[in-house]
Amino acid sequence: MREVFQQDLAEVQTGLVGLSQQVLDAMRNATAAMAHSDISLAEQVISDDIRIDEETARIDDLTVEILLLQAPVARDLRFIISTMRIGASLERMGDLASHVAQLARLRFPEFVGPEDLRASFLRAGELCIAQAEKVHRLLDTEEEALIDDIIDSDDEIDNLHKEVLDSLTAHGDQGEAPSLQIVDATLANRYFERFSDHCVSIARRMRYLQSGVAPESPSA
Amino acid sequence: MREVFQQDLAEVQTGLVGLSQQVLDAMRNATAAMAHSDISLAEQVISDDIRIDEETARIDDLTVEILLLQAPVARDLRFIISTMRIGASLERMGDLASHVAQLARLRFPEFVGPEDLRASFLRAGELCIAQAEKVHRLLDTEEEALIDDIIDSDDEIDNLHKEVLDSLTAHGDQGEAPSLQIVDATLANRYFERFSDHCVSIARRMRYLQSGVAPESPSA
Repeated sequence: MREVFQQDLAEVQTGLVGLSQQVLDAMRNATAAMAHSDISLAEQVISDDIRIDEETARIDDLTVEILLLQAPVARDLRFIISTMRIGASLERMGDLASHVAQLARLRFPEFVGPEDLRASFLRAGELCIAQAEKVHRLLDTEEEALIDDIIDSDDEIDNLHKEVLDSLTAHGDQGEAPSLQIVDATLANRYFERFSDHCVSIARRMRYLQSGVAPESPSA
Repeated sequence: MREVFQQDLAEVQTGLVGLSQQVLDAMRNATAAMAHSDISLAEQVISDDIRIDEETARIDDLTVEILLLQAPVARDLRFIISTMRIGASLERMGDLASHVAQLARLRFPEFVGPEDLRASFLRAGELCIAQAEKVHRLLDTEEEALIDDIIDSDDEIDNLHKEVLDSLTAHGDQGEAPSLQIVDATLANRYFERFSDHCVSIARRMRYLQSGVAPESPSA
């Protein structure tokens, strides 16, 4: 029985690692689709998102089964609870990558947002991809150094997010960019920021898993 | 032992009902703060959000304790799992209400967004408040009719969300609204839409609780 249980836990972990790879691919493709106004790549991200949702649901069912049949305790219970939260974050990250791809598809053959912000969005995408890569490695190896790494890199995305927002609001005074581009850029900016927030939230969950200290506590 | 367990479950439910009341108040106040450019009300929403986070963490700890000490099965386990997800949605709804209030505070003594969209945002806020009221009642009474009610009312918010987006992008071509107002309105529009999405997600969780059919399944 105990051995079956460990196999189940391993299957859940393997599932999460695979899911984080799907999400990483989604953000990589969404960023490229946006940078090059590549509609077929954008459509691929959007249709692949269904697989991310399905895989999340499968892992979710597995965790419920483990809770039901095995009644795990201590670290195993923390692992299962963390899994449920991390799965929810990964699913949402997939949605956000899909939202970025939807903007690219919507504007094709034009680009998303004002021209002078294109480099910033490419940079935001690259930062998100780098974070998602670390999340993927963290789920695979549980290497503790990655946790701080992910949390620290959020600052750069936050700063970039603020820069873009400042630039967008400055834009309007000069009346240069059409409103459609401002709306798109505001949304894209937010999608990247939220994606990064979820990476941080996963990193905090992994710390909880290792330390047993809940990340929702006011001190977190 | 069994009796203590039922008391614990009841405490979790009472906690969620209280939390949904806090979130309802937050959205009510945030909408009013935005509609009247009321900075003190906006600041109250922002500072009250910490209490929502703390209460979510308290309920979360309680559910983990129940999982650990009681190893619930069947409907009790579904209840606990639903609780964790519903708590996460309520916490996020509190964040979104706080984001609306932050926009109101940021623009004080001006208003958020272009003048001709003010009525739409008031309407979006009212729809969110009505949905949050139903969520509150649903968590309290588990009355099944409320589930469809909440899910159905999402359409109206989605339509309004689309209308505002269309109006915002039309705006720019005439060059009427400054970019700052377009950015703000794009964000406010999204906050209301996401708030409503979470209400729907809670309603689906409650259906899962009643039926045992997972809301994440592809057919959902």
